[in-house]
Amino acid sequence: MTPPNATIGNVSAATHTAVATILERCQALSRFSEVPGATRRAFLSAPMRACHAEIAKWLAPLGIATRIDAAGNLHAVYPAAVPPASDSAANSVARPSLDQSVPTFLIGSHLDTVPNAGAYDGVLGVVLAVALLESLAGRRLPFAIELLGLSEEEGVRFGVPFIGSRALVGRLDEDLLRRTDAHGISVRHAIEDFGLQPSAIPQAALGPNILGFLEFHIEQGPVLEDLGLPLAVVDAIAGQSRLEFIFSGRTNHAGTTPMHLRHDALAGAAEWIGAVERSAQSVPGLAATVGVIEAKPGATNCIAGQVRVSLDVRHASDAARRAAASGLIQIAMQIARARKLQVEHKTLLEQPATPMHPFLVDRLARSLTAIGCQPHRMASGAGHDAMILAERVPSAMLFLRTPGGVSHDPTETVAPADIAKALACGLHFLLQLSESPDFLHHKYLQSESMKPDSLIPDSEKRTRRA
Amino acid sequence: MTPPNATIGNVSAATHTAVATILERCQALSRFSEVPGATRRAFLSAPMRACHAEIAKWLAPLGIATRIDAAGNLHAVYPAAVPPASDSAANSVARPSLDQSVPTFLIGSHLDTVPNAGAYDGVLGVVLAVALLESLAGRRLPFAIELLGLSEEEGVRFGVPFIGSRALVGRLDEDLLRRTDAHGISVRHAIEDFGLQPSAIPQAALGPNILGFLEFHIEQGPVLEDLGLPLAVVDAIAGQSRLEFIFSGRTNHAGTTPMHLRHDALAGAAEWIGAVERSAQSVPGLAATVGVIEAKPGATNCIAGQVRVSLDVRHASDAARRAAASGLIQIAMQIARARKLQVEHKTLLEQPATPMHPFLVDRLARSLTAIGCQPHRMASGAGHDAMILAERVPSAMLFLRTPGGVSHDPTETVAPADIAKALACGLHFLLQLSESPDFLHHKYLQSESMKPDSLIPDSEKRTRRA
Repeated sequence: MTPPNATIGNVSAATHTAVATILERCQALSRFSEVPGATRRAFLSAPMRACHAEIAKWLAPLGIATRIDAAGNLHAVYPAAVPPASDSAANSVARPSLDQSVPTFLIGSHLDTVPNAGAYDGVLGVVLAVALLESLAGRRLPFAIELLGLSEEEGVRFGVPFIGSRALVGRLDEDLLRRTDAHGISVRHAIEDFGLQPSAIPQAALGPNILGFLEFHIEQGPVLEDLGLPLAVVDAIAGQSRLEFIFSGRTNHAGTTPMHLRHDALAGAAEWIGAVERSAQSVPGLAATVGVIEAKPGATNCIAGQVRVSLDVRHASDAARRAAASGLIQIAMQIARARKLQVEHKTLLEQPATPMHPFLVDRLARSLTAIGCQPHRMASGAGHDAMILAERVPSAMLFLRTPGGVSHDPTETVAPADIAKALACGLHFLLQLSESPDFLHHKYLQSESMKPDSLIPDSEKRTRRA
Repeated sequence: MTPPNATIGNVSAATHTAVATILERCQALSRFSEVPGATRRAFLSAPMRACHAEIAKWLAPLGIATRIDAAGNLHAVYPAAVPPASDSAANSVARPSLDQSVPTFLIGSHLDTVPNAGAYDGVLGVVLAVALLESLAGRRLPFAIELLGLSEEEGVRFGVPFIGSRALVGRLDEDLLRRTDAHGISVRHAIEDFGLQPSAIPQAALGPNILGFLEFHIEQGPVLEDLGLPLAVVDAIAGQSRLEFIFSGRTNHAGTTPMHLRHDALAGAAEWIGAVERSAQSVPGLAATVGVIEAKPGATNCIAGQVRVSLDVRHASDAARRAAASGLIQIAMQIARARKLQVEHKTLLEQPATPMHPFLVDRLARSLTAIGCQPHRMASGAGHDAMILAERVPSAMLFLRTPGGVSHDPTETVAPADIAKALACGLHFLLQLSESPDFLHHKYLQSESMKPDSLIPDSEKRTRRA
């Protein structure tokens, strides 16, 4: 038998066991599914109940009960140390309110999945939170830790994402409650069908005792794998612009219309797609994508008279994103003018960037250094619950390398060694916070707000294709 | 009253009347339609019978009867002069066979239309042939003139074009007879339903007495309008290659995948579409078109993993067309290699160019000069009945300027002045032939065959966009 804390390679036997448990638990939750043989667990679907029960079973040995709020979010509180009456610092942390009296730090992610999901997107963040509580081994911190298993992030059932975290920031409103799924069931009815009370939704909102939120999540992209790094601190969630462009020329016969007499909408759109790519390559941290293209009439022997294309632009700096989008509009107009085409555009979505809280980002980076990892910072190109919770509480995210960048797919994986490092980082981070007067005395809330230009992630500053 | 042969502007009163009649007749035929208020007259449809009857009515005053062959083509023979017994040249023209004893020159085009057609595509070539016979005013030539109103060119009903002209060259075979339309009616049954005998199809094939074929047709493109010319001699019908390319990369999240880690199939296809356009612009007479594009998965926030594009390449020189197609295959492979994409292609159609007969082309050009027009030569980018008849008999085409390049549309027009010139050119051409020993003694059949490189039309040599 391996003695406790003996190391296997660089990893202690305890960590080795913890990581094995984390992987088993992620796999176990993946079997709570609406469909046999694949993972699909939408907001308040039947298997979500079994998923909640399974997590409760893991927490029971720690003496921690779970509760489900009116939006279907799972909560479990790991209690704070009882502060000595003489310690003024600890006293300042304690709050008077009855229900929300204990300063509390949130850790978690979402429990819903896309159709045909993998086992780690969202779920890993909840399972890692359970493991963190376990690895505290009964040690109490000066603040409580509340585990969050959020009910809805993917937007699968109602076409609107973040329903769970919206409730926590007080944005699960009447409009959203009226929204219906493919079977005509409203959010309100789904909540009632699950045995919950829509009238209690306002009480799900986070109270003033919440110190912050940490979300572990798989990166869902290829950046960390490309850099050979296991983990990264997310310093911002990129803002997003979505636009649609329509290039109009003249439909003509591909045989009878010589090249110099054409007004080919597809040739114009193709030139612009090249410019989109080059523009994005020339601005660090910018992602610009044309994913949709439709040419009319769409026949081999017809010059296209009209082409519709989409544009998705993301950057951690709203100014950089807006400049890129408006530059690409200008280029579209220049190309159209030069080719005697018309071009129209409309903006379908403008979502500003969400910086993660600089104090928490800094402490997460210090924890990475402490455990021997490069404290790499990067922006998240995709949205996450932390983006919503950041509206109300200081929030932070830690990304785990995603092999092949593959997610939203049954082949999604995470390396055990990366999970071990995430767990170590999380534990170090919690202990750092528990020993930080700035944190305990709420001074971190006055940290200077981040400037957009400081948000360009290191990786983007380094490796760019020309 | 205007005296006969008085001129109005540059046009005699007789010509003025003839042109007015031509326009009226085209309009009259456009009203024989399968649908009220629009022109649609498919192969052997009911209104085709009324169309034939109308043309018969125009020819009756000339003492010319019409007949419909087993493929539904209308024929009407304007008789040759009776040759004096002492004239050996004329004797050599006369042939012994009973049915096909008289040397005969064919003039015509097709009577079927696309759905929602204009009044001139095809029809104008038949109506101009009638007008030519009328303007001969009873004068007999050393050869008969046979008017052709071909039954099928557009491929609308059976998805296969040129059914009428295929019968004339002996290619309306069993395979084609078995083909069915949208109602499950076969070509064979359509022929029987029209009151014709499929067993008589072999007799529709052209005999050895046929000296050649002339087709008047609207250009259906913008070239003559752009050059400010009313007419052009077609020196070849361009060959055609049709290919399909599939670029494959990797579908990824538009937010989480930085630019330098993408394998964007659409960005690759767009780069290639630019190369297609530039390649075609750099080779005189080459037309290359990408008209179809489909990107998968086709979502705003997804990098395209697969893109399918079509390629249509046309040139009067088969060597130039093949070189262009294979150059574009090479470029696709280079782009794919540089971007770490895959690309596959397949060839869907390879149709060689059809040169028009050089003797007839030359004589048509001389006629254009004689009537005061620039003898412009150009390739036809679209297929025409002359392309099929050229398999069996020396063939030629005269293009009429098409305002706006618009055809296959109810707004299709032709300028009356251009029709007057086409009629004058046709009449001059017939008289030239009737006085040409080379033609009457069949020496024109030995004209050197045209070399592909000589087929680049003048217009393409002159005006190219860089």
